[in-house]
Amino acid sequence: MSGTHPASPDQAALLRDLLDRRLLIETGVPGVYGRGGDFERVRERLAVLVTRAAASEKPEQLRFPPIIPRSDLERIGYLKSFPHLAGSIFAFEGTEAQAMQQYDRASRNEDWSEFQQMTDLVLTPAACYPVYPAIAARGKLARDGVTVDAGGAYVFRREPSADPARLQMFHQREMVRIGEPDVVQAWRDAWRARALELLGGLGLQVELNLASDPFFGRSGRMLMTSQREQQLKFEVVTQIAGPERSAVASFNYHQDHFAAAYGMEREDGGPVHTACLGFGLERITIALFRAHGFDIDSWPAEVCDRLL
Amino acid sequence: MSGTHPASPDQAALLRDLLDRRLLIETGVPGVYGRGGDFERVRERLAVLVTRAAASEKPEQLRFPPIIPRSDLERIGYLKSFPHLAGSIFAFEGTEAQAMQQYDRASRNEDWSEFQQMTDLVLTPAACYPVYPAIAARGKLARDGVTVDAGGAYVFRREPSADPARLQMFHQREMVRIGEPDVVQAWRDAWRARALELLGGLGLQVELNLASDPFFGRSGRMLMTSQREQQLKFEVVTQIAGPERSAVASFNYHQDHFAAAYGMEREDGGPVHTACLGFGLERITIALFRAHGFDIDSWPAEVCDRLL
Repeated sequence: MSGTHPASPDQAALLRDLLDRRLLIETGVPGVYGRGGDFERVRERLAVLVTRAAASEKPEQLRFPPIIPRSDLERIGYLKSFPHLAGSIFAFEGTEAQAMQQYDRASRNEDWSEFQQMTDLVLTPAACYPVYPAIAARGKLARDGVTVDAGGAYVFRREPSADPARLQMFHQREMVRIGEPDVVQAWRDAWRARALELLGGLGLQVELNLASDPFFGRSGRMLMTSQREQQLKFEVVTQIAGPERSAVASFNYHQDHFAAAYGMEREDGGPVHTACLGFGLERITIALFRAHGFDIDSWPAEVCDRLL
Repeated sequence: MSGTHPASPDQAALLRDLLDRRLLIETGVPGVYGRGGDFERVRERLAVLVTRAAASEKPEQLRFPPIIPRSDLERIGYLKSFPHLAGSIFAFEGTEAQAMQQYDRASRNEDWSEFQQMTDLVLTPAACYPVYPAIAARGKLARDGVTVDAGGAYVFRREPSADPARLQMFHQREMVRIGEPDVVQAWRDAWRARALELLGGLGLQVELNLASDPFFGRSGRMLMTSQREQQLKFEVVTQIAGPERSAVASFNYHQDHFAAAYGMEREDGGPVHTACLGFGLERITIALFRAHGFDIDSWPAEVCDRLL
C-alpha cells in the first residue's frame, strides 16, 4: 500500500474540524470521505456557478461515469507521465472453487489479489479524457470547433494524504475547447480571468500561477520545466491549510496532444488543438468553509447571495 | 475479459437509437456510456423527484464517492454472494524502471497487470454500503433510529452487456432506514407503494414483484430461494426492451446483516435492523425515453409537469 502523505498540524486540525461538524465523514481510508448535507449544498452550488459562467458559450453538455476504457489510458500515454496516480480496475473471472478461496482469504483480511484479473476499465484520471474520443468519433470538425461542458465528474488520483484538501477521488468541474489553435488559447486565457473573478467574488484570496503537472520520476522533471517554459498550464491557488497554497482550478493547453492521439481533423484541413479547464469542487468547498467558518448560516451575505 | 452478454434485437435497436440521438455516447466498452444533455436532464430531475418524495421524512443527507475501503467489502461478505460483480482498484507502486516497462507494455496494448498491486480501495457496489459504517461509528442509536438520503451515487457492477439498460456503472438513488425491526419494515413497505405511484405517474407501466439478488454459483441458488421465502427483496419492474422486464427500483430488508457486521446497537438495548431502497436512475431514464419518445419536447404534458 502506498504511504500516506502526512498532514501539517494546520491540515490535521482542519480535517478534525470538518469531521467533527460532519461536513466530511470518515471512511477509514485517507483521502476518501463521505460528505454531509451542507458540504454537498456548497459543492453543488459551485457547480451551478460555473454552469452560469459558461452559459454564453452555449457548450454542449456531455457527462461521463468515473471509469473509462483502459485502451484510452494506454493511447494517450498517461502511464508515461503519471503511473503513480492511475487506478486500474480488476475483477474476478474464476470458478466457484476459486470464488470460495477468494472469499475465505478476504474474510480473514488476507491477500486475495491473485484471484483478480485486470479488466478493460480504469478509473477516470481527468474529467476531460472521455470527451476527446467522443468528439473524434463524430468525424471532421467544423472550423469553429466544439465547446463541451463535461459537468462535475468524479476523478481518481492515487495520492493518499492526511490533508483534507488532497482527496483520492473528487469532482472536477470541467470545460473543454476543441478547435483552431488561436481560438483554443484565447478561450483558455479568457477563462483564467473569469475564474479569478468567480472565486475572488466568493471571498477567497486567489492568485493565478504558472504551473506544471506532477510528472513522475527524474524524466518528469524535464517535462515540468518544458511545460512551464511553454506556459501550457496555469492554476488558481489559494491558502487552505498547511505551508503551501493549494490549486483550486487549472487551465491547460494541450496543443495537439489529444487531437493527435485520436486523429482529430478539421473540415478545412487546419490543425486541431485542445484546452481544458477544471475547478476542483471539493477543494473550493473546503477553502470556503475555512475562509468563512463551518456554519453556512453565518457566511458573509455577499457570498451567500452569489453562491447559495 | 468477461464475455459480454449479447443484446436481443429489441435491445440492440434501442441502443442504436440512444446513440444516434446522442442520449448515450459510446466509449468502446459495453455498458459504459457517456450521456448527452437531455439524458442528464431527465436523470437529474428523477433524482429531485425522489428527494421530494422523501422530504417529509427529513432524512439526513450523506453522500459518498464511488469507491469504498476494501475492508468494508471484506467485512460484509460481498465476495461470498457477488464475487462476479465486484471491482477492485489496483495501482502502481514500483520503481522508475518498472514504470518504464509498464508504459512500454501499455503503449503496445500488451498486458501490464503485473505492475499493478491491489490497493485498499474497491468500487462501490451499492450506494447504501458506506452508510452503515458511517452511522455505526457514531455510537448507540436512539430508539427511532436514523433515515439517510444517500443521494444518487455511482455504483459498479461487473456485468458487461450489450443491453443499454444494463450498465457497468450507474446511479443508484438510495435511501436507508436504520432502527427497530418493525419501523424499518414498515418504512420499506411504505416506499414500495410510494415508488409505484411515483413511477406510474411518469407514464411507465410498472408492477411490484417479489425478487432475489443475483447470488453467485450453485450455493447462490439456495440463497435466492431463502431470500424469496423471507420476502426480503421487492422490485418495481417495467418493460424497457428485450424479452424480460427490467427492475427499475428495489426495496431491501437486510434484517440484522449490516447491523451485525458493524456492531450497531440501540441505546435501549433492542435489536437494530436496516433496509434500503434504490431507484436505478439510468434505467428509469431509458424507460422514459422508450415510453415517450426520444424527443423530450414531445413528451406528454402530464409527464413533463411532474418531472421537468
